[in-house]
Amino acid sequence: MTLNRRDFALASLSTLGAFALGPAQAATSPVNRRIVLASRPVGAPTLDNFALESVPVPKPGDGELLLRTKYLSLDPYMRGRMNAGKSYADRVELGNVMVGGTVSEVVSSQNAAFVAGDLVTAYAGWQDYSVSNGNDLMKLDPRIKPSSYALGVLGMPGLTAYVGLLDIGEPKPGETVVLAASTGAVGSVVGQIAKLKGCRVVGIAGAKEKCAYAVDVLGYDACISHYDKDMGRQLVEACPDGIDVYFENVGGSSWEAVMPILNNFARVPICGLIAHYNQTELPSGPDRVSLLQSMILQRSLKMQGFIVSNYRDRIPAFIGDMSVWLAQGKIKYREDVVDGLENAPEAFLGFFSGANFGKLVVRVS
Amino acid sequence: MTLNRRDFALASLSTLGAFALGPAQAATSPVNRRIVLASRPVGAPTLDNFALESVPVPKPGDGELLLRTKYLSLDPYMRGRMNAGKSYADRVELGNVMVGGTVSEVVSSQNAAFVAGDLVTAYAGWQDYSVSNGNDLMKLDPRIKPSSYALGVLGMPGLTAYVGLLDIGEPKPGETVVLAASTGAVGSVVGQIAKLKGCRVVGIAGAKEKCAYAVDVLGYDACISHYDKDMGRQLVEACPDGIDVYFENVGGSSWEAVMPILNNFARVPICGLIAHYNQTELPSGPDRVSLLQSMILQRSLKMQGFIVSNYRDRIPAFIGDMSVWLAQGKIKYREDVVDGLENAPEAFLGFFSGANFGKLVVRVS
Repeated sequence: MTLNRRDFALASLSTLGAFALGPAQAATSPVNRRIVLASRPVGAPTLDNFALESVPVPKPGDGELLLRTKYLSLDPYMRGRMNAGKSYADRVELGNVMVGGTVSEVVSSQNAAFVAGDLVTAYAGWQDYSVSNGNDLMKLDPRIKPSSYALGVLGMPGLTAYVGLLDIGEPKPGETVVLAASTGAVGSVVGQIAKLKGCRVVGIAGAKEKCAYAVDVLGYDACISHYDKDMGRQLVEACPDGIDVYFENVGGSSWEAVMPILNNFARVPICGLIAHYNQTELPSGPDRVSLLQSMILQRSLKMQGFIVSNYRDRIPAFIGDMSVWLAQGKIKYREDVVDGLENAPEAFLGFFSGANFGKLVVRVS
Repeated sequence: MTLNRRDFALASLSTLGAFALGPAQAATSPVNRRIVLASRPVGAPTLDNFALESVPVPKPGDGELLLRTKYLSLDPYMRGRMNAGKSYADRVELGNVMVGGTVSEVVSSQNAAFVAGDLVTAYAGWQDYSVSNGNDLMKLDPRIKPSSYALGVLGMPGLTAYVGLLDIGEPKPGETVVLAASTGAVGSVVGQIAKLKGCRVVGIAGAKEKCAYAVDVLGYDACISHYDKDMGRQLVEACPDGIDVYFENVGGSSWEAVMPILNNFARVPICGLIAHYNQTELPSGPDRVSLLQSMILQRSLKMQGFIVSNYRDRIPAFIGDMSVWLAQGKIKYREDVVDGLENAPEAFLGFFSGANFGKLVVRVS
């Protein structure tokens, strides 16, 4: 069943009955609401690409446990999973549940490592309930409060910012760090860590409200709106000593503005390219690949892509540093919490219009 | 005076008189032959871009010394110095002597650190004589024999190969290393070090003779000719496990063949792009920059440009390793020696047609 926006609301209402029993009985509810990939997007995704289904709650077997989703993380990388082509991770098959990180509660356990009531981080996807053998779970670190932070500043996006900036970007005091999507889940952490490391930090964002937040709350030295036509000139003015680290999570016009003023030995960790995720064809020419290669050579640049899942060994250092920084108020964090699983698709679409502000999380139960 | 090929030969003859006095008197000869940049190339360089001049031998002042060039190194990077635009190093101004590394002999010294007869490596350029204050000189390491090797396998090209492959490429035993220009001054060293490190090595070269040399003498596992139209298919066959390190010193069709089969986490040290040095306009579209960025992201690639002059701290380790490898016969080295300064321009042009075979050196005196 493919749903339009109204269908989503109706489907949502129709399943409310199951939950009217209240949380105590939910564990025995026969209904698991889940959002599956109904069709693959061509260009920008739409609500039609998702379908909300109600199916029986899965039954855990020997050694398994039943999880109920508390929070679902929404992240730009999910767009890549909706494509038919090969990406850095497996695509979601048509009809399958959309993937996603969650904070989940153990409802019942036949696994000695967990008991009912445990909070864990899981990769349970866009649904109310899931079954796990425990291998993909991590008990929630007691330093992580509120628990939804495990999906953001103290979770995958935070670790992404931490290793991308520190391990690949290698910022040095006094250097200039530029980042786009600079108030987002990853960007806001990148910029604040760069400030902690003694760098000049210049953000790029969309809405003026986000730019003001970047400077006033996150403490960036400047923030430029990519809505402004003279963004390139503004960036030059904001970076009088050029750019030493560009944390790339957008591409497109941000990259075009940054490229001319990258310093010799600049580092460009490539974390995401949201400006290109919905691209259906390449821009017209000329083909500037050789120009980019020449620039990498002439300026001794480093461009390096990375995926956070390859940096699990950095989790202890990350949690240690970040929990201290948060406790000391050195890192500010903003969540954009959406209530209700049924609203996940629409919230997700907001990534491509800049509608969200802060880390996007769905409160599922 | 701009020279054509015949003029060069005549000019060469006309200056022979000064040298007919023999080496013993050459130190007092009034003539310094030098090759200057007569005009900037548009596209491929030609002999017209160079001019051979005869000027008085310069006189060293206090603390300075007079050098006579024994060997002049010719290298592809010199093409970049001929352009008006900014590159990673200063351009050669019109009318100035072409730059270049040399092995030079101290003719006379008013610098306490050097005495007449010392052999040094210098950056004396395309000329018979030069004056130095000593700061840019390095006494020839006694392990370097013959002395011309200081311009190749035991000099800048060798160090380029060493740091580019080991420090940026980070090859691991069992990985596949691909390199283009694979029998050249840099490439031949890259490939052989990669073999020493336990890698599968696949070269790309032009002439069949070079490919045979790469396999039979240098010990590569395979070598493919970029003259073959099915080079891409051949490369796929030669790299059944994909490519982990691509040492880039060519660009163009070599890069196009390599790109599709780069493995996740592949490293691409960018050392040179000779296929693009004479490019006067970008290829027609589409613009594939975003495609390249996406590939870097999806495959966690590292592309990094580098310039050997930033790796001086690696010289001791390099000389130590390389002199042992040479002595043990583990690294083979081939020089392409051209006699006579007057023949340097024509020899240099050979880089762009693949005419040279091995490290190109001019025997000047």
